[in-house]
Amino acid sequence: MTEFTKIVLTERDMPTHWYNINADLPAAGVEMFPPLHPGTGEPIGPADLAPLFPMALIAQEVSAERYIEIPDQVQEIYKLWRPSPLYRARRWEAALDTPAKIYYKYEGVSPAGSHKPNTAVPQAYYNMKEGVTRLTTETGAGQWGSALSFAAQMFGIECKVYMVKVSYDLKPYRRILMETWGASVIPSPSNQTNSGRTILAQDPDSSGSLGIAISEAVEEAATRDDTKYALGSVLNHVMLHQTVIGQEVMKQLEVAGADWPDVMVGCIGGGSNFAGFTFPFIRENMVNGKQTRFVAVEPSAAPSTTKGVYAYDYGDTGKMAPIVKMYTLGHDFVPAPIHAGGLRYHGMSPQVSALKEAGLIDAVSTTQRAIFDAGVNFTQAEGILPAPETNHAIWGAMQEALACKESGESKTIVFNLSGHGHFDLASYDAYLKGELVDYEYPKEQIEESLAHLPQVG
Amino acid sequence: MTEFTKIVLTERDMPTHWYNINADLPAAGVEMFPPLHPGTGEPIGPADLAPLFPMALIAQEVSAERYIEIPDQVQEIYKLWRPSPLYRARRWEAALDTPAKIYYKYEGVSPAGSHKPNTAVPQAYYNMKEGVTRLTTETGAGQWGSALSFAAQMFGIECKVYMVKVSYDLKPYRRILMETWGASVIPSPSNQTNSGRTILAQDPDSSGSLGIAISEAVEEAATRDDTKYALGSVLNHVMLHQTVIGQEVMKQLEVAGADWPDVMVGCIGGGSNFAGFTFPFIRENMVNGKQTRFVAVEPSAAPSTTKGVYAYDYGDTGKMAPIVKMYTLGHDFVPAPIHAGGLRYHGMSPQVSALKEAGLIDAVSTTQRAIFDAGVNFTQAEGILPAPETNHAIWGAMQEALACKESGESKTIVFNLSGHGHFDLASYDAYLKGELVDYEYPKEQIEESLAHLPQVG
Repeated sequence: MTEFTKIVLTERDMPTHWYNINADLPAAGVEMFPPLHPGTGEPIGPADLAPLFPMALIAQEVSAERYIEIPDQVQEIYKLWRPSPLYRARRWEAALDTPAKIYYKYEGVSPAGSHKPNTAVPQAYYNMKEGVTRLTTETGAGQWGSALSFAAQMFGIECKVYMVKVSYDLKPYRRILMETWGASVIPSPSNQTNSGRTILAQDPDSSGSLGIAISEAVEEAATRDDTKYALGSVLNHVMLHQTVIGQEVMKQLEVAGADWPDVMVGCIGGGSNFAGFTFPFIRENMVNGKQTRFVAVEPSAAPSTTKGVYAYDYGDTGKMAPIVKMYTLGHDFVPAPIHAGGLRYHGMSPQVSALKEAGLIDAVSTTQRAIFDAGVNFTQAEGILPAPETNHAIWGAMQEALACKESGESKTIVFNLSGHGHFDLASYDAYLKGELVDYEYPKEQIEESLAHLPQVG
Repeated sequence: MTEFTKIVLTERDMPTHWYNINADLPAAGVEMFPPLHPGTGEPIGPADLAPLFPMALIAQEVSAERYIEIPDQVQEIYKLWRPSPLYRARRWEAALDTPAKIYYKYEGVSPAGSHKPNTAVPQAYYNMKEGVTRLTTETGAGQWGSALSFAAQMFGIECKVYMVKVSYDLKPYRRILMETWGASVIPSPSNQTNSGRTILAQDPDSSGSLGIAISEAVEEAATRDDTKYALGSVLNHVMLHQTVIGQEVMKQLEVAGADWPDVMVGCIGGGSNFAGFTFPFIRENMVNGKQTRFVAVEPSAAPSTTKGVYAYDYGDTGKMAPIVKMYTLGHDFVPAPIHAGGLRYHGMSPQVSALKEAGLIDAVSTTQRAIFDAGVNFTQAEGILPAPETNHAIWGAMQEALACKESGESKTIVFNLSGHGHFDLASYDAYLKGELVDYEYPKEQIEESLAHLPQVG
């Protein structure tokens, strides 16, 4: 009874500001590159983004201020689940027989079940403040769509989600969750947009893709005055909002009397949970001489940061989104159908990419059988069932813990348990039945898509 | 930022003992009746129960001690999610436009998603301590089966769950959850027991029932030396273990600076979440002159406490379980297939029954469209998606809040949000599509089954 299992903070201990890493990058020698217009290839300004995003978010996207105050009305919604708990994984440490001390931050306690509402809530809030009454977005497996549906409901905004048709048909639970929060969910491609109709004319049975769904959501926002668009990862303001995670972790480790982390591990798809978890600590490395190692884990099937190039590329398949400098596999790269749907993206957050390029973070990749081995091992020790995306972080932490067992070192390892797997049980079923397929590094497919990068910058 | 949304406690604030209401019932004039042997009709002793339960639990079942210490190893597992948060439902109060102050305890934060692990963990622990290496149980929709699978995994005990076949086929997610925690899950009726084989011989396509699944689980435990049985509700020791809920609520209301509750609301099937939530407060009514009103809400389709009789009856359809004095609809009553599968039981906890008979608690019933109306109303205000069972408690709290709106009273209403609905989204889908069927009070069916009560006591 003397040793704690988890550290909870009260609402009084919540971070009051988001941390904007852009304020610290120049002094650390980390270069950021301006986004370019997808049509002209020229740097874009606020006016170019205004049809899609409210001005407050556009301002945050380019802000150089180090700390941006979290509005009271956002805090009120955050308090429905924040601060989230930080656990010491004592039972897992014992199961792994490691001298390492393992901690994990649990973001699955949010109503939508992941870290995604950390940005969905402020995005819905700023839209509401500027008089926007409708939001559109796209979703694959449904994590982001459900987070935005929840957030829009909290501020009385209508929400329309274009959901990739194959997921809409095969994964009804997240669709129903979105509808229960009042959203309307449309299988994409649909006949409600030009983008959708064009696809359906070519292939009436199209099962859709995230690229097509983005095009539909963006088109609807761009063509209706009352409607704007919301994106769940990649952009600077999304990374910004997620920094409540890392700030809480820092306070919780202090309350726990823990050592400063030797290594912090997160999974990356677009980069937002990793960014939110690590950026406050990366600042300590950059500014205060700390020496934490940061490990980003991505799937072998979508290895943008480990096998892609650092180059200007379109954010979407349809070339409607801005061109940004990032690690990319090429905008027409389509990842294999791994269960970690949230990590199936061809690019990476420009901020995370710049940090990787500067050598401030490490990236590794692995296959889905390996990450389910790690995830089930964790679940049987700690009880919590993680999302397949999160299992990448667990795999990464497990490698570090097993290395400590080998070396005898008692490192402090902290990872981000970004979401629960309650809506992903079909993937666990496949794993337990031995039916899970591994997808290795798709070298030739990547070489082909990288041949189509835009000739800019 | 000045008003709190939820009260979290640290692990140092966890209750150290369970509260045993049997210690206070005699002085309050509440009579309890001894359980009888299903074969002889005579009072049963510990030896009769020994094939099914470890001695520590049998001792708790009949204990007159007021406070029973929670073992350290149980506390260590409780700490994976306890203390659970208490919320002030400010957003729902505003949506209902009520002067009432509404609080809710959220038990959905456990790994299995409900209050059930509060008893599954000590049950697995005491079995482990007495050298039991295997546990059997039955499950309908899977809440209890998943709780026991989780708990057994935590103590390295094998777990075998007989799952009603129709649920096994139609609701694979909870089956997969149990398997991920290492349990083996068998569709019932099975060919692994005499009870199952008898049913299959009569009807090879039987879709099963909770009564049959209980018989299979009990038979296997009774006939194997290494195996015992675990039950998730009804029994005294189950009510006992759940009292961590109410004890935490009492501390949290104090931290919140809240008034003493005017009314507390919970749903009832076998009675355990209601018991755990209210018993520590019922003691304050019985012993310290408090005047809280306690409201138990049950489905119209299984209205044991509102429409049944207070009589001796079998705990199961197969007449293998002890005969207990309780509110019952008759042991061969089969409730309509409502979505709140956890409330489809013909009887009620003897302790809860005795309190109802003594006038210390109230009971009401309602239909499933009404409880989903209330549940969706709540979800759209507070974000959390409740289980269908829990929606009964929400409906009850809503009636109290609307009565306050009518009267202008600012009562303090507290309800137990006993579990999340992440595995129940099909029922929300039916509700949103207007396809939910209401089942009214089945008067004639109850009259018929009540004609078969045992002639004892």
